[in-house]
Amino acid sequence: MYRTHTCGELRIDNTGTGTTLAGWVQKVRNLGAMTFIDLRDRYGITQLVVDENTPAEVRAATAGLGREYVIQATGTVRERSSKNPKIPTGDIEVAVSALTVLNRSEVPPFTIEEHSDGGDDLRMKYRYLDLRRPPLQRNILLRHRMAQSARRFLDGEGFLEIETPFLIRSTPEGARDFVVPSRMNPGEFYALPQSPQTFKQLLMVSGYDRYFQIVRCFRDEDLRADRQPEFTQIDCEMSFVEQEDVLEIFERFAKYLFRETLGIEFGSAFPRMPWSEAMARYGSDKPDIRFGMEINDLSDRARGRGFAVFDSAEYVGGIVATGCAGYTRKQIDELTEFVKRPQVGAKGLVWIRLAEDGSVKSSIDKFFPAEELLAWAAACGAAAGDLLLLLAGNRMKTLAALNVLRLEMGDRLGLRDPGKFAPLWVVDFPLLEWDEETKRFYAMHHPFTSPKPEDIPLFDTDPAKIRANAYDFVVNGTEVGGGSIRIFDSGLQSRLFETLGFSHEDAEKQFGFLMNAFKYGAPPHGGIAFGFDRFCSLFGGADSIRDFIAFPKNNAGRDVMVDAPAPIADTQLDELALRVAVPEQ
Amino acid sequence: MYRTHTCGELRIDNTGTGTTLAGWVQKVRNLGAMTFIDLRDRYGITQLVVDENTPAEVRAATAGLGREYVIQATGTVRERSSKNPKIPTGDIEVAVSALTVLNRSEVPPFTIEEHSDGGDDLRMKYRYLDLRRPPLQRNILLRHRMAQSARRFLDGEGFLEIETPFLIRSTPEGARDFVVPSRMNPGEFYALPQSPQTFKQLLMVSGYDRYFQIVRCFRDEDLRADRQPEFTQIDCEMSFVEQEDVLEIFERFAKYLFRETLGIEFGSAFPRMPWSEAMARYGSDKPDIRFGMEINDLSDRARGRGFAVFDSAEYVGGIVATGCAGYTRKQIDELTEFVKRPQVGAKGLVWIRLAEDGSVKSSIDKFFPAEELLAWAAACGAAAGDLLLLLAGNRMKTLAALNVLRLEMGDRLGLRDPGKFAPLWVVDFPLLEWDEETKRFYAMHHPFTSPKPEDIPLFDTDPAKIRANAYDFVVNGTEVGGGSIRIFDSGLQSRLFETLGFSHEDAEKQFGFLMNAFKYGAPPHGGIAFGFDRFCSLFGGADSIRDFIAFPKNNAGRDVMVDAPAPIADTQLDELALRVAVPEQ
Repeated sequence: MYRTHTCGELRIDNTGTGTTLAGWVQKVRNLGAMTFIDLRDRYGITQLVVDENTPAEVRAATAGLGREYVIQATGTVRERSSKNPKIPTGDIEVAVSALTVLNRSEVPPFTIEEHSDGGDDLRMKYRYLDLRRPPLQRNILLRHRMAQSARRFLDGEGFLEIETPFLIRSTPEGARDFVVPSRMNPGEFYALPQSPQTFKQLLMVSGYDRYFQIVRCFRDEDLRADRQPEFTQIDCEMSFVEQEDVLEIFERFAKYLFRETLGIEFGSAFPRMPWSEAMARYGSDKPDIRFGMEINDLSDRARGRGFAVFDSAEYVGGIVATGCAGYTRKQIDELTEFVKRPQVGAKGLVWIRLAEDGSVKSSIDKFFPAEELLAWAAACGAAAGDLLLLLAGNRMKTLAALNVLRLEMGDRLGLRDPGKFAPLWVVDFPLLEWDEETKRFYAMHHPFTSPKPEDIPLFDTDPAKIRANAYDFVVNGTEVGGGSIRIFDSGLQSRLFETLGFSHEDAEKQFGFLMNAFKYGAPPHGGIAFGFDRFCSLFGGADSIRDFIAFPKNNAGRDVMVDAPAPIADTQLDELALRVAVPEQ
Repeated sequence: MYRTHTCGELRIDNTGTGTTLAGWVQKVRNLGAMTFIDLRDRYGITQLVVDENTPAEVRAATAGLGREYVIQATGTVRERSSKNPKIPTGDIEVAVSALTVLNRSEVPPFTIEEHSDGGDDLRMKYRYLDLRRPPLQRNILLRHRMAQSARRFLDGEGFLEIETPFLIRSTPEGARDFVVPSRMNPGEFYALPQSPQTFKQLLMVSGYDRYFQIVRCFRDEDLRADRQPEFTQIDCEMSFVEQEDVLEIFERFAKYLFRETLGIEFGSAFPRMPWSEAMARYGSDKPDIRFGMEINDLSDRARGRGFAVFDSAEYVGGIVATGCAGYTRKQIDELTEFVKRPQVGAKGLVWIRLAEDGSVKSSIDKFFPAEELLAWAAACGAAAGDLLLLLAGNRMKTLAALNVLRLEMGDRLGLRDPGKFAPLWVVDFPLLEWDEETKRFYAMHHPFTSPKPEDIPLFDTDPAKIRANAYDFVVNGTEVGGGSIRIFDSGLQSRLFETLGFSHEDAEKQFGFLMNAFKYGAPPHGGIAFGFDRFCSLFGGADSIRDFIAFPKNNAGRDVMVDAPAPIADTQLDELALRVAVPEQ
């Protein structure tokens, strides 16, 4: 071993003892008679001292040190004359008696400090250097601790970790698969799993009644910011359970993670909210309930009064921005532009200012008398000094826009503290989603999700109203997990496939082996999967998942460090019986 | 929850309590007045009883039950009149008061019992049914326990579990990569990792001084029996360590696994054996040291005495099959055929029988007097009643053949008890392997393996003699793990690349990003990787890894259950800018 202690370990109690440290040179301060070296490893920084009493060869070696050199230093721990209360080792220093340069370093392309001077692209290219920075080291450590805690909990609850295959069969439904050409079977391809869904259901058929896996999944989607082509799930499935059982266990799971990893204790049960309520109150199936500012349905009050914008709208709704009556014209114009962006898609923004003196001013005061507007404000729970922001149009689209506006106002008003956590179960999702374009229903979760038994008659009358035994785990406006109770009755499954417009042959072709397995005694079962990258970033109080993945891809799906993907040799293509046929541009 | 207890849980102490069980019907025995149902889940089997006191509707439901039906049964625990000491629940039965058929089952294609009547292919196709059988359930449970124990130990030793990417860059050296076409970058490919080797070394450069991962790896090799295109490694790496540190920690790791998983305690240190000694004594770099029967070098005694077969041989060696002097002509002919198979490759087998009466009989007694043969036997430690088996030829090939013969004799004599474990470190591997065909050296482990410092001068004189800081963990003749101390000095690395015949450009092209990373302060580091599938099968006392993988591929790399690989749609190929070009047969 090249060291006796780490660079984060020595304290005032160690004074007088000999030590050997190894690590990276963070900084060298040459004060003439004395030279201080900050030696760093992932455990901390320890100050080394070289002075006139230090052997000459050590002094010579010290003179040649540069940033990020890897050195081994032996010496004696002594109390510092000038202590540094900011670091745990700040009371001591090591008087060096021997020093070996284990490896030199070129000058790194950016500073390896809490805040680096390197840009995003440069830090991605030199990811192995960026990973030396304390914020990334904290993230990677957090991820490690979360993974160990998650497994400890699940193991303790009798879940078995069972590995499922990565080289599987492509299914045309759903997102695009990454495929893997098979050399041994020319012209044939494996697919990389988008999730272990079918395999975990097969494991239930096999009688492994509690399964979990922390597993990589793959999705070949057009990348958006903060999407990764490979991502990690905590994937779980249970047999002989109903929805309540799954929620009970995984609420304890989440509480365990909060306690073990962050030291946060949740005494009471996580709130549960039906999907329809979440949509009505927050305009989102993943509401951020750290703050109120709920959406108020003003349709009945606002429509039919002769204001064409409202009259022609299916829905009018608004939120109350507390204390924002003083917003300037410019600020309101900004908000108007914000909601009119294509990503939000509102036609315009209606505002009502409730001045401190009780007067009211609004962009629609030509159309509605002040008393009416005051009545609306009262209905929304607004008070003097508040600002009402209203949107109108198609109900679901307007609710979605109000959600975005609400989150924006939450950010502006500092109501979304990343150190505060507000978990929530969203339940009773619709089973089906109607797609206007293709004029067919799609499964909102996946085609094995079980409807609520009491809603089964709706298959005949109003399938869109069928609620599913499906649930999402939402924290701070982020969907961290989701799952469902699965259909295990083949008759019901056929009925759902029918409603989804699958012919018997289609269903057989796509899900044949699972359907076949279900003929041999499938137990009732259900499960949940958590997005582990997202879970980590949430716990780390960060927005981006990228800083919680050791070696992420960039937004073009490229690993710029290893330069992948890349062309392969023609001989490799020949072996795979493939030709590249890039179309002319 | 559909149950209050599992089918392996109820005992005599539960007599009189109400219970609800859910599981699969293993067997129905209708004795007229009484019907017994064996109900099975992964925890065990509990006997249900239906008799004249049982409600009529339950009796009716019972009559319709078939094998593998999934049922829920409620009733009262009572003591059995006829106990079954073979199962833990054998003292009790459950008198059923309510029974629900949760799901029916078609008649399964083979019996779901300890020993199935299904053939290999059928059981692979219906893997989800085969996985219901107790032996597979034990294997999957063992694998789970080993994984949890492995992580618990490594976490406790300060190793961080860090996930490395699956979509990486293809490297032409080594085994074939599986590749993944990139839709977003037409004509370019990712590769699936054969191991996280380069990434774990980058993590050392990044300062994560103790890393581990239980991780899937991929190798597109022509499959041999019991090889899988995807396999799992316990992958570990450490910084600021020397070989002794790695061996110390991972010997404790292995002992921990033996203790936690099998309850086996190893008091003393695992033996260590230099590679050259392993080859000389066992003809193998992974000797099975559960039994002796070591190889004896008889070259000096046997050559130069006028027997052409020996005289022309570089090496003559033999093993002693204790107590086998009575082997018949037929048995010896069988062994001769065995060693002459192409896989073993010996030209013939020489035998010397030491009869109980002290006389000697041999296939070469025309060429050597009895006294001489007796002297050989004495030199080999053989006694009256033993059989000597000799092979001759090229030294390394003959040693390899003697290894195979030794293992065969070990099997025949029952010396290879799968319940007995003999771990061993094989150390001091050669750094380089000369390939006659391409007339160049190859790295025996990989091109970052560090030579022993004292052997570095041999680069100039006799590179084949350089020993590496490389080590294998061997148990019962199986290589379970292997690793090395890595080169972290760029001068030494260049020298090794030169010896391997890499031009600077080649090295740059293949390992550029790692070489580049090493310029910025690479610490001394080394590691080890264990074949987890193999580790599990070893602990399970089985030869095949396939039964320790939930969903394995067959020997043609095919998943016959999901039928993968398979052709993909033309539209999918178009999106990937690929054409299939299967050559004419």
